[in-house]
This record gives sequence, C-alpha cells and structure tokens, in this order.
Amino acid sequence: MKTYKEFYTLIEQRIAAFSFDGNPPELYNPLAYMLSLGGKRLRPVLVLMANDIFGGDTEKAVSAALAVEVFHNFTLVHDDIMDKADIRRGMPTVHKKWNETVGILSGDLMMIKATQLLCETDTSRLKDLLGIFNTTAVEVCEGQQIDMNFESRSDVSVDEYIQMITLKTAVLLGGSLKLGALVADASLENANHMYDFGKNIGIAFQIQDDLLDSFGEGDKIGKKIGGDIAANKKTLLLINAFEKADTLTRQEMEQLMHNTTVTEQQKIDGILAIYNKLNVKDEANKLKEEYLKRAFAHLEKVEVEIDRKEVLKNTALDLMERMS
Amino acid sequence: MKTYKEFYTLIEQRIAAFSFDGNPPELYNPLAYMLSLGGKRLRPVLVLMANDIFGGDTEKAVSAALAVEVFHNFTLVHDDIMDKADIRRGMPTVHKKWNETVGILSGDLMMIKATQLLCETDTSRLKDLLGIFNTTAVEVCEGQQIDMNFESRSDVSVDEYIQMITLKTAVLLGGSLKLGALVADASLENANHMYDFGKNIGIAFQIQDDLLDSFGEGDKIGKKIGGDIAANKKTLLLINAFEKADTLTRQEMEQLMHNTTVTEQQKIDGILAIYNKLNVKDEANKLKEEYLKRAFAHLEKVEVEIDRKEVLKNTALDLMERMS
Repeated sequence: MKTYKEFYTLIEQRIAAFSFDGNPPELYNPLAYMLSLGGKRLRPVLVLMANDIFGGDTEKAVSAALAVEVFHNFTLVHDDIMDKADIRRGMPTVHKKWNETVGILSGDLMMIKATQLLCETDTSRLKDLLGIFNTTAVEVCEGQQIDMNFESRSDVSVDEYIQMITLKTAVLLGGSLKLGALVADASLENANHMYDFGKNIGIAFQIQDDLLDSFGEGDKIGKKIGGDIAANKKTLLLINAFEKADTLTRQEMEQLMHNTTVTEQQKIDGILAIYNKLNVKDEANKLKEEYLKRAFAHLEKVEVEIDRKEVLKNTALDLMERMS
Repeated sequence: MKTYKEFYTLIEQRIAAFSFDGNPPELYNPLAYMLSLGGKRLRPVLVLMANDIFGGDTEKAVSAALAVEVFHNFTLVHDDIMDKADIRRGMPTVHKKWNETVGILSGDLMMIKATQLLCETDTSRLKDLLGIFNTTAVEVCEGQQIDMNFESRSDVSVDEYIQMITLKTAVLLGGSLKLGALVADASLENANHMYDFGKNIGIAFQIQDDLLDSFGEGDKIGKKIGGDIAANKKTLLLINAFEKADTLTRQEMEQLMHNTTVTEQQKIDGILAIYNKLNVKDEANKLKEEYLKRAFAHLEKVEVEIDRKEVLKNTALDLMERMS
C-alpha cells in the first residue's frame, strides 16, 4: 500500500510533465498557472488510493486522477469569477491576472480537458467512469448555484446547508474514490461504499473548515480568524445561530452583519460572542462526528482486508487533524 | 433519405420532450430557455443526415444530435457574456435575463449535459465519438479566444481570420457530420471526408455571412446592413480592405472606425465606399467559392451512392441561397 505522500509525489510529477502547449496562449497558460499553484492534491490522491486498495495498477488510474484535479481547477476558476475573488492560494486569480473572458474560456477548456483525460483511462468501464464523472460535475454546478442563492437569503436551514456542501464539495471526494475503485475493477457495491465514505468525509471536512474559521488558532490555519463572519458567509455556525437565536439576538446579529457603522472586528467579536452564547460550536462538532461515523461505517463495509483500508482512514483523520 | 425538414421536425420534437427539471431552477431554466429560442438546428440535423447517408438508424443518432445542439447552446451562452451581448434571437441573453453567475454556471451545466447526451449513444465506438466531440470542443474554445484577441489587434491577416472562423464555427459542422457518420458505423476515411465537407462548408457559410452584412438586402436577411461595420468587427472584408488599402485609405478607415465625431451611418457608408473601391466583395466571393469547391470535392470522395449524398449537397446550397 502506498502512502498519501507517495501518491502526492506521483501526481506532482505528472502535473509537472503535463504539456500545456496550445494556441492561443491566453487559453492554455491559465491551465498551467492553476495547476502550478499547488495544494494538497486530495482528489487525485483519493483516486489513486481507492485504486490501490482494490489492488489496481496505479499507472492505469493516473489519467483519471489528473482528470479530477483538472476538473477541480475548472470549478475554482469559474467560482472565483462568480465570487469576485482576487486571490487564490496567495496568488492572483485567473480573471484578475488575465481578464474575465480568459477566466470563462480557460475554465471551459479545463472542463473539456478533464473529460479528455478521463477518456484516456485504460479501462473497459469507460462508460461507467464517465457516468460518475458527469453526474458529479452536474452536482458540483448545482451546489455552486445553491451557494450563490444563499447569499441573498436569510432563511437557510441546516439541512439545506448540508445539501449545499454535499453537492458543492463532498460528492467530488466520493466521486474520486468511486472512479479509482472502478478503474481497479472493484464491484459496484464496494465502489459505492467508497463513494459514501468520501461523501460523508467531505461533509465532515467542510464542517471542520467552518469551525476553524471561527474557533481555530489563526496562526496555525494560516488565515485570520473570522474571515467567514466578516464576509457574512452562511456557514453552518451562522445558520445554526440564526435558527437558535431568540428575536432579540437575531436582531443583534442582523445589526452586526449589515450595519455599516460596525467595524469588522466589532462584527467578528460580536458574532463570536453570540456563537458562544448559543453553543453552536458543540452542535457543529456533534454533526461533524456524526458524518465521520457514517463515513467510517461505509468504509467498514468495503470488502477488502482491513489493513488495506487503514491508509484511507488514517488519511481522513490526518487531514482533519492537520486542519485543526 | 429523409429531408432537412423531417430531421428538423424530429429534433424539435425531441427538444420539446426534453426534461429540464432540476434544482436549483436558476441552473436548469436557462437550458430550457436557450433551447426554446429555436434556430435552424443545423448541427443536430447534420448529425442525423450523415448517419442517414450511411444507412444508420436515426433513432440511434438522436442523442448525439442533441448533444451537439446543447453544446452549441453552451457556447452561445458563454460567448454572449464575453461579447456583452444583450439580445440573442430577439430575446434577452441568459446573463441579461438572469445574471452573469447564472450565465457562467448554466453554460457549464450545458457543456456537461452535452457530454452526458453523447454518452447515451448506443454505439460500440463511444470512445471515438468522445474523441471527436472533445477535440472539436477544445477547438471552438480556441477559436473564441482568438476572436477575442482580434478585438485589440489591427494587423489580423486573412489567413488568421480563416483559421479563427474554422475553429470557432466550421469544425463543429464538420464534427457533427463525422459523429453522425460514425454512429452509422461508416469507415474512418468516409467519416473524415464528411468532416472536411462540413468544415469547408462552414468556412464558406461564415464568409457569406460577412458578405451579407455589408452587401445583403437588409429586409431579406432580417437585420440592418452594416452591423459588423458599426461594431468594428474584424470580418474578412475589413481585414482584406486593410491589407489592400494604401496608407491614405488606411488612415481614412482608422478615422471612420475610431473617431467619435463620425456618426454610425457615416461610418457604414464610408467603409462601404472603401470596400467598393478596393473590390473586397469579389475577393471574398472568390474565397467563398474556393471553400465550396473544396467541400464538394470531399463529398464526392465519400463512398456511397451519389443519390444518397445529394441531400447534403442540396442542403448546403439551399442554406447558402437562403442566407443571401
């Protein structure tokens, strides 16, 4: 069984060896740029790990792994335009470095390139792979649109929030694992348990991410505490707080969020105080644990020797730990 | 052999029966909206026609035909954002009717849906179909980016222009025919001749389109003469005129194009006068005929009874005629 580190290194090597040539350069350079920004390469590593668990040949799963990474970067490029984000991993976003046209079109190119990479997979189950890939891609779009819709709503429920993060981020982790499993010719049942493991882990990751923004140690997570609060982002904590708050507290929250005379620090401090008063941290932690439990229950059902599954379990716990 | 009309009707029926359900509606409604705006349905008809020529079962080619139509609409939605176009077929464009986020995301959805539709094709050659489809899709993106780059350039050559329209519009006609041929299990050689027929016809169509904007009968083509001139669009005529003009004429053109005191009508009249002086119309017509000739030469090489190919030849000539 290979480790995260080994798969990560392989993915980095393959990305470095990737050919980004093409004309016009405005279309191809953003692809090279985005892939050079690094990151954990979690999704492609999951493809390779799932493939490895079922005894698959890593080489056969590499193009599917790269497909998922290129797809993920396509979503980042388009999301950054929609979110009007200027910075991504400490560097200018594509539409900032070039322009919006380049952002839209190079994103489109990445989406197509992702499908091309998937089609290069040496498998007799290409149709199944494409089925998972396209379904997941559609869901990621749905999740992003739901997230966009949240911005203008003040009545988002916890259930709706979970549905949104499931679509926007969790299904791609599940999809990556399922793709890897199928490349290794795993049974559909096993592949589906891998999918559900990844999906539930993905939900837990996102809840953890929300928690860290409000309760993490700023230095450790490398970003300022309260960024989500400052941006009025509808996180699990904010939604939960809104649900639990009495009328007066809700008014106070509205004030903090929308009154322009309130400074950013006042807003962060004020909302955090309400989070503490309403105990939303514990509730979020409980929900996170619930999804982790579900995830591991699915992993248990995967029919391979228990040792082979350890790497995946440890990776999940490790990532969760490293995040906190 | 079925006629254009018959295939068109079939496509319209299938589009009408399409399910556009999905959540959130902001993501799915634009797909229904775009497909309801009508049009010639040229690309899906070409898929079905090519399939028919090689004796293929029309039913087997319908999903590939719809894939191409949905893909085409994806490009329109994203192009309209980039071109800042407010109107498409007399109706508001998607990003105008909704907003830019919806335009980007629903376009992304259409691209994925197109691939899903293609994957539904009942064929043993799915990998080949996807290969053509993805290559064509990449080229269409390249063409659009080259077209965008033209906007800020004043030294575009005729060759570059032909390359741009080839990528932006002609390869999709070729790709549609090749897809249809392969669904009918035509030989690769025959499918490639179909592709080259479509590509060259596509170039001729685009040249005709440029010609009509300057020299058509306004009422007949349903739009005002000189729209391209008013928008400083780098058409074959403008590029050719720039190439042929002496220094003084070129200065005059620059004046007409960029001097804000010149009215739109003065600009159109002035540029048209220069087109006439430099005889760019004849040259464009000659080029158009050249591409038509190349197209028909490829059609001749397709190894099926000559009668079966007539419908395609007539369709091309008919469309060219109806445009003018």
